[in-house]
Amino acid sequence: MGSTRFDVCGIGNAIVDIIGRCDDAFLETHGAAKGHMQLVDAETVSKLYKAMGPGVEISGGSGANTMTGIASFGGKAAFIGKVGQDDFGGVFAHDIKAAGVAFETAPSTSDTPTARSLVLVTPDGERTMNTFLGVSPELGGDEIDQAMIADSAVTYLEGYLFDRDEAKAAFAKAAGYAKAAGRKVSLTLSDGFCVDRHRDSFLALIKNDIDILFANEAEITSLYATSSFDDAARQVGQDTQLSILTRSEKGSVVVSGSDQITVSAFPVAEVVDTTGAGDLFAAGFLYGHTKGLDHETSAKLGGIAAAEIISHIGARPEASLADLAKKNGLIG
Amino acid sequence: MGSTRFDVCGIGNAIVDIIGRCDDAFLETHGAAKGHMQLVDAETVSKLYKAMGPGVEISGGSGANTMTGIASFGGKAAFIGKVGQDDFGGVFAHDIKAAGVAFETAPSTSDTPTARSLVLVTPDGERTMNTFLGVSPELGGDEIDQAMIADSAVTYLEGYLFDRDEAKAAFAKAAGYAKAAGRKVSLTLSDGFCVDRHRDSFLALIKNDIDILFANEAEITSLYATSSFDDAARQVGQDTQLSILTRSEKGSVVVSGSDQITVSAFPVAEVVDTTGAGDLFAAGFLYGHTKGLDHETSAKLGGIAAAEIISHIGARPEASLADLAKKNGLIG
Repeated sequence: MGSTRFDVCGIGNAIVDIIGRCDDAFLETHGAAKGHMQLVDAETVSKLYKAMGPGVEISGGSGANTMTGIASFGGKAAFIGKVGQDDFGGVFAHDIKAAGVAFETAPSTSDTPTARSLVLVTPDGERTMNTFLGVSPELGGDEIDQAMIADSAVTYLEGYLFDRDEAKAAFAKAAGYAKAAGRKVSLTLSDGFCVDRHRDSFLALIKNDIDILFANEAEITSLYATSSFDDAARQVGQDTQLSILTRSEKGSVVVSGSDQITVSAFPVAEVVDTTGAGDLFAAGFLYGHTKGLDHETSAKLGGIAAAEIISHIGARPEASLADLAKKNGLIG
Repeated sequence: MGSTRFDVCGIGNAIVDIIGRCDDAFLETHGAAKGHMQLVDAETVSKLYKAMGPGVEISGGSGANTMTGIASFGGKAAFIGKVGQDDFGGVFAHDIKAAGVAFETAPSTSDTPTARSLVLVTPDGERTMNTFLGVSPELGGDEIDQAMIADSAVTYLEGYLFDRDEAKAAFAKAAGYAKAAGRKVSLTLSDGFCVDRHRDSFLALIKNDIDILFANEAEITSLYATSSFDDAARQVGQDTQLSILTRSEKGSVVVSGSDQITVSAFPVAEVVDTTGAGDLFAAGFLYGHTKGLDHETSAKLGGIAAAEIISHIGARPEASLADLAKKNGLIG
């Protein structure tokens, strides 16, 4: 798979995270479901922002985070997503390019603002997200760069895109281009509530088009409407070729048909902010996979990247993931 | 001094910091003087931003940082400064109010952008700033809230304001209001290069209007055009009633006439980013001073606040400074 211009092309929402700390009572008062992402409208995001404490702004977006992770490992990554013509749009575009990811999607010409997510981090390090998508779902089929996708070993799609019809259509188009070029399509389920909103669409997509699926425990059990992780893992083994199920401190399980490989989590001194743990796990796995490494090593690379990201505020790597992987003997 | 609505009212540039890491070679390539603040125009800030790595956005501005520090100690602080109508203006206004500081200056109605500073942090933790002032110097005399200043025990001015004539006039007006109400006026010299640009104006102001002066070693030696700290300390003792000179890891010296009290620095496990060290030192001292504490205790409060700020990225406190001060037995 080394002959393509890009190892992975990600498609997702282009979001700037506004990260602040709060206690559990604040989440309850504002009706935010702990650990989840909820979509909010302009009025609600403004009200909630006013109520929350001081913030730190760091570029985010699930798929975009994953692409910067792949670049940090030394992989070749590209991203397709929509920003507005405002400060936050400038910040998003700067940060992803400065991280070494190809990003060529033109900013919107409308006045609609760039997407922002109020990320509330509780004392236990858990993050709860309130996302105003703004201009992000305006990403249309026309902006899916066919040449870029045909020249990427894997096209990676974030499930969050399913929340808006136009973005969902762009998503389908991208999968089509990848298949036509003989490339692989990967999907992350993104969020348990998101899966709940689109269960049937996701199941159909997974059975027909997805080569590599990422999901955490809440997402995969939501997909199969079961409370048993083992049951969900067994079912997903029948529905798709390769899936990687993450279980936080319990590590991950790589499922391929009836084969299951369990890989333990990488140790973390202190969990500061879990934002981006899943995104960075996917980065490590996809980097390993596109470099032809075995599933176990790829899952370990995912674990290292997830451990780095949860040890600090924000969902973009601060340390070189390539250096971390080398230091731990996973890559040469 | 406990009978006023505010302990301290700060007047300064309203800036959002864009903080990124770089090596010393990057500073050289881009002609940035390490450890200093240089003013840059729109074109230069845009060019430099393009060249630098991914950033984190955190509200800043020297005087504004100081006010959030005072609020974190439990003091009553207000801030006067000018933002634009863009995302960064919204971020600045939100963060300072969310930190508990009164901020009522109306945003500009022009299209000029909110001020931003590219803060480049080298591996030794030293910060080098490249500031595009944008709309900030549009703060005019009309926006200096006389009632607010008359109701503040101390009005605190940042020397950076001297770089633009209109802001300098606003600065003079504020000092006049404070004096008329029988309040104290405090000034920080902000930056050695800034002092160099305005030496005579600063000297006249200090001799006539300033009750409490803050300066670091580079600034005070620049003010008196001497290479000797002791010489500068002796001279400033003749020129103003109370001055507090900070010397990084050597601690601080409180100068009052021919009296000098030396206070050692508060220990720091690891210097991550020195941005805001002086700003937060001033916060601690002013908090103590307005609460009627002695100079030594006030300087120790300054040291604790500076130590907190340099142990993480960004110039706004992450921990409660009141809790830190209590834990160290400095306040009850």
